[in-house]
Amino acid sequence: MKQYVVGVDVGGTNIKLGIVGPSGQVIVRNSFATKPFASSRIKLISALASQIEASIVSSGLIKKQIAGVGVGLPGLVDYEKGIVRFLPNIPGWREVHLKSILQKKIKLPVFIDNDVKIITLAESQFGAGRGVRNLVCLTLGTGVGAALILNGQLYRGEDNAAGELGHMPLNEHGPKCNCGGFGCFETYVGNRALFALASRVMGRPGMTTETMFALAQKGNKKALVYWKMAAKQIGNGLVGIVNLLNPRLIIIGGGVSNNEKYLFKTITDTIRLRAMGLQGSAFKIKRAKFKDDAGIIGAYVLVTNAQR
Amino acid sequence: MKQYVVGVDVGGTNIKLGIVGPSGQVIVRNSFATKPFASSRIKLISALASQIEASIVSSGLIKKQIAGVGVGLPGLVDYEKGIVRFLPNIPGWREVHLKSILQKKIKLPVFIDNDVKIITLAESQFGAGRGVRNLVCLTLGTGVGAALILNGQLYRGEDNAAGELGHMPLNEHGPKCNCGGFGCFETYVGNRALFALASRVMGRPGMTTETMFALAQKGNKKALVYWKMAAKQIGNGLVGIVNLLNPRLIIIGGGVSNNEKYLFKTITDTIRLRAMGLQGSAFKIKRAKFKDDAGIIGAYVLVTNAQR
Repeated sequence: MKQYVVGVDVGGTNIKLGIVGPSGQVIVRNSFATKPFASSRIKLISALASQIEASIVSSGLIKKQIAGVGVGLPGLVDYEKGIVRFLPNIPGWREVHLKSILQKKIKLPVFIDNDVKIITLAESQFGAGRGVRNLVCLTLGTGVGAALILNGQLYRGEDNAAGELGHMPLNEHGPKCNCGGFGCFETYVGNRALFALASRVMGRPGMTTETMFALAQKGNKKALVYWKMAAKQIGNGLVGIVNLLNPRLIIIGGGVSNNEKYLFKTITDTIRLRAMGLQGSAFKIKRAKFKDDAGIIGAYVLVTNAQR
Repeated sequence: MKQYVVGVDVGGTNIKLGIVGPSGQVIVRNSFATKPFASSRIKLISALASQIEASIVSSGLIKKQIAGVGVGLPGLVDYEKGIVRFLPNIPGWREVHLKSILQKKIKLPVFIDNDVKIITLAESQFGAGRGVRNLVCLTLGTGVGAALILNGQLYRGEDNAAGELGHMPLNEHGPKCNCGGFGCFETYVGNRALFALASRVMGRPGMTTETMFALAQKGNKKALVYWKMAAKQIGNGLVGIVNLLNPRLIIIGGGVSNNEKYLFKTITDTIRLRAMGLQGSAFKIKRAKFKDDAGIIGAYVLVTNAQR
């Protein structure tokens, strides 16, 4: 019985692997640093292949029990054709036919997709979004990523490039964004913006969301004000998607979501205040359930969905 | 054979009826003014019922040939439960169980929906959006309406309230909108805003998009500048949805879309300039195919989709 999936989560810093069973449980975990392999695409793919084989061996399973391999990558991925179009943080990855190359090496079906889409599949099937037909899954960090479950399925868009909530403009005269646009959501709530806001509020450089969280925990009033300001910015940026998509749920993950108690109520209040009546009362905000395992568990959903 | 549908398009000014055949052709048309019936919900529903019966009679068809009746309404409609939640421009319509009331009167299956969703069904099945899996259909007028075809189907959202593109905020400090929000797309490109811009550009009051169109046709330079400004505003407001949904097509309908030659190129250029690379090159803009018949033809799609 092909009940297991090898999940691979390629990040700019680490590559995580895991073997996932039929109820989403991770039975083997493994990881290695990306950097030694980042200089060469061929080396990285070879490392992936040997680590996949090693994971299977250490799980005690045989290949016949493996339905396939799911790989999540931080960038633009053509899921249907199995091509990695572009990875902004790993040099040399443009138009790489990863699916077919990897399939030849490991003799198992391989499916590849964008990492945020894969995380969203995990939350939708096993996590905070279980049973919800229409949801937005948002990851807040250096970048602002998102993916959409609409009518019960992952919405990919024409080129598997849907979900760029971080690049919805909030102000046409706003700051220039890395994407080429202006005043994108990410320029207000990406780490760079939130760190800069923190330093401004505290009146000293080098502040981060972590230091602000620690200060808030100790009752620092400026830090509490800071989190209100950050939450309002996040809420303002979500009004549009609430009006447009009328979702039941917004899942928030990524580092900043650890600060749930300082953020979620103000985010919710801000959206309810500014969104249309029905849409504004229809949604809830929940924290993502999975952290480190999200990409591996999502890879299980990716592979099993593709083979249904 | 139940091959025909009675389509009803309820507007604030007129109510249009038509009988539509299997390839989307309208074989009988009929219309009456809304105003005489606007004072009483019961009178309006009775008028609808008798006009539906009259249309069938004048078509020469018998009820056995009619698959059902589709009704489009300008407001918030619960498609699944068959309830009209609220019509902003026709007083007294709150929580009306129109589907069941009308079914009892005319002894035919009735389906009701929001008018913009119905127009979008018409464009998707028989019009500018034929064969396109992912599209946004936008109507520009007093209000800015929209509906979404995603993964080949109408996306309704949790409460059938999805599609409020006109109420995506473009500037958190922008003008207060009727919806309660701030800086919504509609406050920049609804008729009120476009008329005000026209008067500002021409330096005299009372200008409309119609007068500006006539002036542009005569080569008036200010009017040509005006249309560039209007198109840029429309384009700016569509960047977010292009990045978020990665659609193949944006269909534009409503009065302003008559000015295609002054608008569409600048709208497209503005989006391409500001949207992300892949998403910005993936979409096209087309003018809606249907005008007066859109609601009636869409009602045909609504009824036949529901009965598939």
